[in-house]
Amino acid sequence: MKIGIIGYGNLGKQAEKSVNAQPDMELAAVFSRRHGDLKIETKTARSESLDNILAYKGKIDVMLFCGGSATDLPQQMPMVAPHFCFVDCFDNHGRIPEHFAAADKLLRAGGNVGAISVGWDPGLFSVQRLYGQSVLPQSKTYTFWGKGVSQGHSDAVRRIEGVKYAVQYTVPVENAIERVRKGENPELTAREKHTRHCFVVADKNADTEKIRREIVEMPDYFKDYDTAVNFITEEEFLKSHTAMPHGGFVLSAGTTPDGSKQIIEYSLKLDSNPAFTASVQTAYARAVYRLKKEGATGAKTVFDIAPSYLSLKSSLELYKEIL
Amino acid sequence: MKIGIIGYGNLGKQAEKSVNAQPDMELAAVFSRRHGDLKIETKTARSESLDNILAYKGKIDVMLFCGGSATDLPQQMPMVAPHFCFVDCFDNHGRIPEHFAAADKLLRAGGNVGAISVGWDPGLFSVQRLYGQSVLPQSKTYTFWGKGVSQGHSDAVRRIEGVKYAVQYTVPVENAIERVRKGENPELTAREKHTRHCFVVADKNADTEKIRREIVEMPDYFKDYDTAVNFITEEEFLKSHTAMPHGGFVLSAGTTPDGSKQIIEYSLKLDSNPAFTASVQTAYARAVYRLKKEGATGAKTVFDIAPSYLSLKSSLELYKEIL
Repeated sequence: MKIGIIGYGNLGKQAEKSVNAQPDMELAAVFSRRHGDLKIETKTARSESLDNILAYKGKIDVMLFCGGSATDLPQQMPMVAPHFCFVDCFDNHGRIPEHFAAADKLLRAGGNVGAISVGWDPGLFSVQRLYGQSVLPQSKTYTFWGKGVSQGHSDAVRRIEGVKYAVQYTVPVENAIERVRKGENPELTAREKHTRHCFVVADKNADTEKIRREIVEMPDYFKDYDTAVNFITEEEFLKSHTAMPHGGFVLSAGTTPDGSKQIIEYSLKLDSNPAFTASVQTAYARAVYRLKKEGATGAKTVFDIAPSYLSLKSSLELYKEIL
Repeated sequence: MKIGIIGYGNLGKQAEKSVNAQPDMELAAVFSRRHGDLKIETKTARSESLDNILAYKGKIDVMLFCGGSATDLPQQMPMVAPHFCFVDCFDNHGRIPEHFAAADKLLRAGGNVGAISVGWDPGLFSVQRLYGQSVLPQSKTYTFWGKGVSQGHSDAVRRIEGVKYAVQYTVPVENAIERVRKGENPELTAREKHTRHCFVVADKNADTEKIRREIVEMPDYFKDYDTAVNFITEEEFLKSHTAMPHGGFVLSAGTTPDGSKQIIEYSLKLDSNPAFTASVQTAYARAVYRLKKEGATGAKTVFDIAPSYLSLKSSLELYKEIL
């Protein structure tokens, strides 16, 4: 199957590597807002301006959206969905129903299939929440994130005057996870679930105490959390804080009707968040391709796609080897 | 939807409780080899002889097979599949393709849907192995079981002369799990992955040293493992060793093409194995019912069923609440 990538930032670059590692996929082109002069890694694929994307209609089976959910995707999706199957990583949880409805309509009009909100959260974590709720209806499901870099929170810190570089790690509170593991089913506030650790490089002569205060008092982002702010040198920042690890936990803790305690725990420990997200996206590209072949149309989520669609293996191989 | 239960042992009794806890299900009848004189918990359901099952054709939407995989299911499935939708927990991994093919043919002939090999292994663990392999093609997937009671191994010990009661716990080797978690991707022998702990009540005057030797040298079951045998009193056995806890771990450890280490871990900690298995079976009964309504026929596995089919909630609710 022929794959196109839209956007060539952190995610797009990892999607390229991921597609190239699949025996059943071939990268056809990378689309960006630049005029086709973008240097890409894959020699056999084209680098194209997004303006030329319709020239690839019928030549690319699945497009991978690798831009941001805030501005890129809302602009690009309506342009692409009537003409191509796609996988996106739309991660604005509150607006998923709206995004689903818009994508579904355009995809159906064009006879295409799109998988929306794919990745690990939303994505694999959502799947775990669903299995957990469904097999343990008398349970509570908890999601903890980290330890890992939150782009949104890092960006928020970087916007503060006097900040040169910054990274924010979300850290789950180990004791809270332990209580869930024990089946206590605690009510946990935001503060009790996660702490936030910021590593900041300040401009020369900047007022670090003022920066610290602005961070810890920032509504929505930090106010409801215990936040640690560390000022470090540029050298240390570039040496130790440019990777993008992430991960987290989904726990469903409850009882079966006989009163027995039953605990389901899922966790991810990711050295690279974008590389893993791209890897999930690529697996779902395979699913989209197959669904389209079967005559399906419209938007799908990870909830609507049977696990077998993700695998390179035939059903019989799967039954023999891993069922 | 109307549910029937076939078999009223540990699993069947838990399936009854699980069905009764679902707002969209009603238990219609429990079928057993006894002549309908079996006492069941549910006042509103019938206790029936298995011989009368065809009288319920068109009156029961989904049958839950709750007997054993070794002899009960191979006998009962061919009788039931042409006439009813069903969920079974067939757990003889090596014979799944054969069981699938037989069930598929009979189900299609009758226009029915059956979910086979449902539970947690095969079942939820299989799903995790599939997601792990698919999103991390350059990974190794490990399954560890326990700490928990293995019925097969307990039965094997009970068949030894001089044994009155016995239970066998399979215990995963913590150090092996730790190595996988660290991303070492070790090659592990059976002995390195699990140890086996037996608690045995011997008959009066039995030769305990002979029993111990027979256990630890038993081929297939114990010879390839480090096995601890503890002789205990009947009183202690009945007090501390009649519950059926189980659980385990599925880990997929590997790298994405950029070289980053990525670890996925899934674990179950179950105070009651049959209660949890029944709970999974019940969720898949909902899926089977819906698939049949949509016009599907034939055998399905956990790989072939999209997660959304398991949930009581509508797709829109799921997108809003947990995606």
